[in-house]
Amino acid sequence: MIKNIQVKDARFPLAKGAGSDAIHRDPIYSYAVTNLIDDSGLTGTGFAFTLGEGNDLVCKAAQFYAAQLKGRDIEELMSDFGNVFYQLSNEQQFRWLGPHKGVVQLALAAVTNACYDLWAKKRGVPLWKLLIDLSPQELLNTLDLSYLEDELSPEQALQLLKNNQQGKEDRSQIIHAGYPGYDTSIGWFNYSDEKVRENCKKAIAEGFTAMKLKVGSQDPKRDIRRSHIVREEAGDQVKVMLDANQQWTLPQALKICGELQSMNPYWIEEPTHPDDILAHKKLADAIAPVKLALGEHVPNRIIFKNYLQTGSAGFIQADAVRIGGVSEFITVSLLCRKYNIPVVPHVGDMGQLHQHLVLFNHISMGHDALFLEHIPHLQEHFVHPVSVEGGVYKTPMEPGSSCDLKIK
Amino acid sequence: MIKNIQVKDARFPLAKGAGSDAIHRDPIYSYAVTNLIDDSGLTGTGFAFTLGEGNDLVCKAAQFYAAQLKGRDIEELMSDFGNVFYQLSNEQQFRWLGPHKGVVQLALAAVTNACYDLWAKKRGVPLWKLLIDLSPQELLNTLDLSYLEDELSPEQALQLLKNNQQGKEDRSQIIHAGYPGYDTSIGWFNYSDEKVRENCKKAIAEGFTAMKLKVGSQDPKRDIRRSHIVREEAGDQVKVMLDANQQWTLPQALKICGELQSMNPYWIEEPTHPDDILAHKKLADAIAPVKLALGEHVPNRIIFKNYLQTGSAGFIQADAVRIGGVSEFITVSLLCRKYNIPVVPHVGDMGQLHQHLVLFNHISMGHDALFLEHIPHLQEHFVHPVSVEGGVYKTPMEPGSSCDLKIK
Repeated sequence: MIKNIQVKDARFPLAKGAGSDAIHRDPIYSYAVTNLIDDSGLTGTGFAFTLGEGNDLVCKAAQFYAAQLKGRDIEELMSDFGNVFYQLSNEQQFRWLGPHKGVVQLALAAVTNACYDLWAKKRGVPLWKLLIDLSPQELLNTLDLSYLEDELSPEQALQLLKNNQQGKEDRSQIIHAGYPGYDTSIGWFNYSDEKVRENCKKAIAEGFTAMKLKVGSQDPKRDIRRSHIVREEAGDQVKVMLDANQQWTLPQALKICGELQSMNPYWIEEPTHPDDILAHKKLADAIAPVKLALGEHVPNRIIFKNYLQTGSAGFIQADAVRIGGVSEFITVSLLCRKYNIPVVPHVGDMGQLHQHLVLFNHISMGHDALFLEHIPHLQEHFVHPVSVEGGVYKTPMEPGSSCDLKIK
Repeated sequence: MIKNIQVKDARFPLAKGAGSDAIHRDPIYSYAVTNLIDDSGLTGTGFAFTLGEGNDLVCKAAQFYAAQLKGRDIEELMSDFGNVFYQLSNEQQFRWLGPHKGVVQLALAAVTNACYDLWAKKRGVPLWKLLIDLSPQELLNTLDLSYLEDELSPEQALQLLKNNQQGKEDRSQIIHAGYPGYDTSIGWFNYSDEKVRENCKKAIAEGFTAMKLKVGSQDPKRDIRRSHIVREEAGDQVKVMLDANQQWTLPQALKICGELQSMNPYWIEEPTHPDDILAHKKLADAIAPVKLALGEHVPNRIIFKNYLQTGSAGFIQADAVRIGGVSEFITVSLLCRKYNIPVVPHVGDMGQLHQHLVLFNHISMGHDALFLEHIPHLQEHFVHPVSVEGGVYKTPMEPGSSCDLKIK
């Protein structure tokens, strides 16, 4: 039974330039950490990610949701989590603050993730193991599919989950083999050209086969120059992604994405405002076969549904520490499966939670395990930091979701 | 110069059943009230509207924005408010909590509206008068048009404003004539059939020529029965609107909107989730010529742009106490003008602020002044409550935006 709730505002300043992009000059990586403490002594930990300012708002909203779980048994809660999620996210007054977006959805992610962590700890298994062992019906029970009726009814979702049972055993090889990480830290926006070049060499030496550069400069020449530096260092076999972090207007994006094709990007990420579904659609059509990656700032399954319906996303980057937590992440992944679009999460969690979800998406749902973003800046703060060796994510074996932090 | 900032959490419980709809059972109408106190002794008042729980979160976020205006001169601020709005809404860390949606956008509305109120008080005129006296260029300077470049560049916006100068004088007759209010309080969701019938009679007797009923029941027969009660009492000449408050799934909406056509609704409002642009498009196409009204929960100009681009909205119900304030409201109204779609605001402000904006939209922008929602529940709490006589909004003549509350 959940006996106590603790919510902590944890902020971690970064080294100069780290984390910077075209929009975010000087982020302080921060977590609204929710602890659900069981009467057996276990602590479920979940968090939402922010860039510092306002992290306290998310903590306050998380407190509101978490308070409603006091006295509940975690197994009972998770046996019907789809309804729990629906009830929490539609609390009739609090809902006005979204609905299902912004501060309240971030906070819901923290609380949902704490539930999943506690659940896995209670069963004494890593979260990926818990998830792959659930039956299709048990999985379905954890999902809130409301407002998806036109694309994914409960019956369709169940069928999709059942269909993908086939091949599960083969796909479980990934537990031993691991899957590639990609290095986002080679090219933060405020790093000098020299530092980017140096970081590329280092990433290649470490075994990375994919890496990402921040673009979105007011001077397009800088973007083009730097992207070619990365291509030059990385060679033709390495996947290079470009990330504009919403900086471009649609007319700008149409122009520069055309010019960036010359360095053969694997994807172009967040070209413009995350709410502008039709702009993404126009851009995707214009720059094909180059693909767009999007989703870091998309708050819920309904907007992802619209993105999938318009065919504007080549890769979906849902982030379980933004979109309401693990269950909403699985819902979005299921929608993506229907559309055959790969899910490559944005890692506001530094990959701690998502390393479990990529394994689950691959093994249980048949998604490709292409790769997962890797950002090493907070490793020292986690009890069980992700392990990326030779550019490959190693499977976490500790019980839970790997989200415990060393903060008091 | 803005010398002091005060933010107040004001909550007003309602009489039983009042304010209820298909989603919100028991709202407490609440304002996150921001006061900007000038060194001349004037106080600018603005607020965002919530339904109670979480109003404190909006207050906290408003404090963050307002603090950045301390020491600024209001005339100087408003001469370039488009940039001020852009800077505030894109503060590099805080932006992560949206962007441009949810708690932070609500809070920005409170602060923006306080600026407009202070500006009008400083000039000693009602807000509508201040706004209609601005030149097209001065108006343009108050707007943030970023991410609208594909539909409304600054040059196009200026041209649109200039084109609509024609006829301004004729349209100013509305200052004396007023324009109709419509009565939303006849048919709250939890009112009995008898009370709805009685309220209709009362509204007709008071001179209202338009009224709205809450629908979205789990039992469609209840919706159909009640909508026919209203039509019966109102007669064929009165406009009757139906409001589902997001309760329906798309398949449900497709079915019941067809059935509700029999009572000839003037519009059907918020049929499903406010983020689901494509569902609204499908529904709008299916039920034409019946029109959809939407926007009460739409947080910013970018999503409104998508709604307009898809042609799914027959009426746009932007609410200046949600979408970031007066300037964003004007931006959205300008977009609507381009698309020739009427703006009929949702009145989270109980019409206090919007009565000014409807006059401005009509006189300066050439929008029809169709009518404005009227909800009388908080009249006693305002210093200058709206005056609706014979079903017609009377023009406010006090300096400012009519948003001062009697709270300490």
